[in-house]
Amino acid sequence: MNKLVCPGFMAGGIAAGIKKKNEKDLGLIYSEKPASVAGVFTRNRVQAAPVILDRERVRSGSAQAIIVNSGNANCCTGDQGMADAIAMSKVTAATLGIPESQVLVSSTGVIGQPMPIERVESALPGLSRSLSPDGFPDFSSAIMTTDRVPKLVVREGSIQGNRFTLLATAKGAGMICPDMATMLCFVCTDIQSDPGTLGLLLSAAVDRSFNRITIDGDMSTNDTVLLLANGMSDCVVHDGKAKAIFQEALDEVLIELARQLVKDGEGATKLAEIRVKGAPSNGEAQAVADTVANSSLVKTAFFGEDANWGRILGAAGRSGVPVEPHRIDLYFDDVQMVKDGMGCGDDAEADATEVLRKSEFVVTIDLNMGSGSASCITCDFSVEYVRINADYRS
Amino acid sequence: MNKLVCPGFMAGGIAAGIKKKNEKDLGLIYSEKPASVAGVFTRNRVQAAPVILDRERVRSGSAQAIIVNSGNANCCTGDQGMADAIAMSKVTAATLGIPESQVLVSSTGVIGQPMPIERVESALPGLSRSLSPDGFPDFSSAIMTTDRVPKLVVREGSIQGNRFTLLATAKGAGMICPDMATMLCFVCTDIQSDPGTLGLLLSAAVDRSFNRITIDGDMSTNDTVLLLANGMSDCVVHDGKAKAIFQEALDEVLIELARQLVKDGEGATKLAEIRVKGAPSNGEAQAVADTVANSSLVKTAFFGEDANWGRILGAAGRSGVPVEPHRIDLYFDDVQMVKDGMGCGDDAEADATEVLRKSEFVVTIDLNMGSGSASCITCDFSVEYVRINADYRS
Repeated sequence: MNKLVCPGFMAGGIAAGIKKKNEKDLGLIYSEKPASVAGVFTRNRVQAAPVILDRERVRSGSAQAIIVNSGNANCCTGDQGMADAIAMSKVTAATLGIPESQVLVSSTGVIGQPMPIERVESALPGLSRSLSPDGFPDFSSAIMTTDRVPKLVVREGSIQGNRFTLLATAKGAGMICPDMATMLCFVCTDIQSDPGTLGLLLSAAVDRSFNRITIDGDMSTNDTVLLLANGMSDCVVHDGKAKAIFQEALDEVLIELARQLVKDGEGATKLAEIRVKGAPSNGEAQAVADTVANSSLVKTAFFGEDANWGRILGAAGRSGVPVEPHRIDLYFDDVQMVKDGMGCGDDAEADATEVLRKSEFVVTIDLNMGSGSASCITCDFSVEYVRINADYRS
Repeated sequence: MNKLVCPGFMAGGIAAGIKKKNEKDLGLIYSEKPASVAGVFTRNRVQAAPVILDRERVRSGSAQAIIVNSGNANCCTGDQGMADAIAMSKVTAATLGIPESQVLVSSTGVIGQPMPIERVESALPGLSRSLSPDGFPDFSSAIMTTDRVPKLVVREGSIQGNRFTLLATAKGAGMICPDMATMLCFVCTDIQSDPGTLGLLLSAAVDRSFNRITIDGDMSTNDTVLLLANGMSDCVVHDGKAKAIFQEALDEVLIELARQLVKDGEGATKLAEIRVKGAPSNGEAQAVADTVANSSLVKTAFFGEDANWGRILGAAGRSGVPVEPHRIDLYFDDVQMVKDGMGCGDDAEADATEVLRKSEFVVTIDLNMGSGSASCITCDFSVEYVRINADYRS
């Protein structure tokens, strides 16, 4: 396993008293040099104050630090919430000795509670002192909410003989749905690039990773993906082959994190990839995949390890795509369960049930209508999901 | 309470061995005279054989019997499934001594299993002998799947001094979503009317009842609402005041059944009406109401009796409607919890929590943008829902 560092970046995470229990809840990423930056944000109309602030600041194309808290989303908090987000950036900037405009802010947690800004302010000197190249695991822990495990991925690559590093960390767990960035994801790299190129690279990678997963069909008010490139390596990424190499590395890292998010989905015990092929178009394939992946009935059947293919066909049938039931074939991994819209019998079902006992499997739906294809990664829907979300604030 | 009968109609329900346990699973409604008929069916592209058959037969405008089984949906069963649905109607017609074309068929239960048609055939003589004007409670029990209680409503009215009766029974429990008829609903009345008028009356009533409820956002392959009018009373319903009086009675009966369906939603412990007002249009109000009513995070919070209004605003924000968060007010019953997009504080939350402890409550979302309004009735999302649906076939 690679060492969890990225040249020129430091990070840290501490307990500032924002969460009720004495857990890490405040994290900081710092780049020795101002970095090129790009961001992807939630499309929810209800947006947290730090999302509104970051969206504005990312336009400058440059950032040097990200301050992140868990335990409070600073959302639906009105003018005071925006003042608090700005205050978080101000005290971070003052402590680090950098311009306020170079600081980005993220928050995750309960919506609609006032931000305990004084706790952030009094914790910052200690957090700043704890900054270290090895501090990313602490940072990853500090941004967790209902996540069971921290998520941190490092990958190295080379462009024309020069090495580059890509380090990314994310938190997720609930409120994740296609067409959305994940809850929070921060990517650090030492390549040299401009903000415009970074933006294109990041959007493409998010489309292939976080926008292809679902946990509960909900969409957060705080979702943010930020990419910082500090240029400490000799790799220049602007176009051509260098861009393709870096895009592939970025895709890989974000897809790996996206899979980790689904595996750690609230209460999840299974990871299922829904692949649709033979659709009239890619867009229609995606509509079918997303509808199946978000069906509560399908997801509870996965939890029950029940090869209830009728629910999958039922979900496909209400996707808005004019599927032709008598053409549909369906597979659990390599086991064909449905041919021409009908079940393949008890032996197939026994084999399919074996597949569903695994912790990861692929459901392939062939509509046999055209050449459109798409996929969506989802998890099962467990008793534990309901417990977690019924009790979240208590 | 009214007696559970409707002049000129008989019903019955028995155990035919379709369900694994020895429970009632085959029901029959019979009208002494051929009745005018109208139907509303699922819009799912995957449709059960009996739905396809009924849709065709209802076109004649006349029917005299409805044979219904639970325990098997006869869906995704190919040509054999259609042959079985026709066979069900054939043996029913032969036993009752009426034309096959006068028999409608409904099925509900597991998808993709072959229909045990021989059990239906051998049970029909006994079922026919059990027919009685008082047989509707038995019929209602025979059409249940995961329902906890049978659902049967009778209402009397008068038109120009003549009495009429309206009797309706339904089964639901899972796979219920706006823009869908419920799983199965059968309405008997003794008015005199034509199929065209009945169709308009039924569509309007379904729009105001079953299309305004949601349990889990899924849409069944078998959903059917049938209305039979046998003309045994002297009430003629064609237009004008008579039509308005009957429409109101029909609306009332179906709304009452729709509420009963939600209350008996799989694992449901709470009934919540989501009312949206102040939207730019009625359609946009409906989009917000439906998105909130289907949010897993909102529904689990209801289960936890948690006044987590942030999740409600979050769902409204992803509804596709350009809501303006800083304008939104939100109430639990009469308790204002959100003003101008921000929480109203701890006292309000304590009062709101009291409201959520009730088994029925209203959530009002005022977008303060226009005059559009709409509502959707939903239930909470419980641990029990997951248990039921994970184990449904085992």
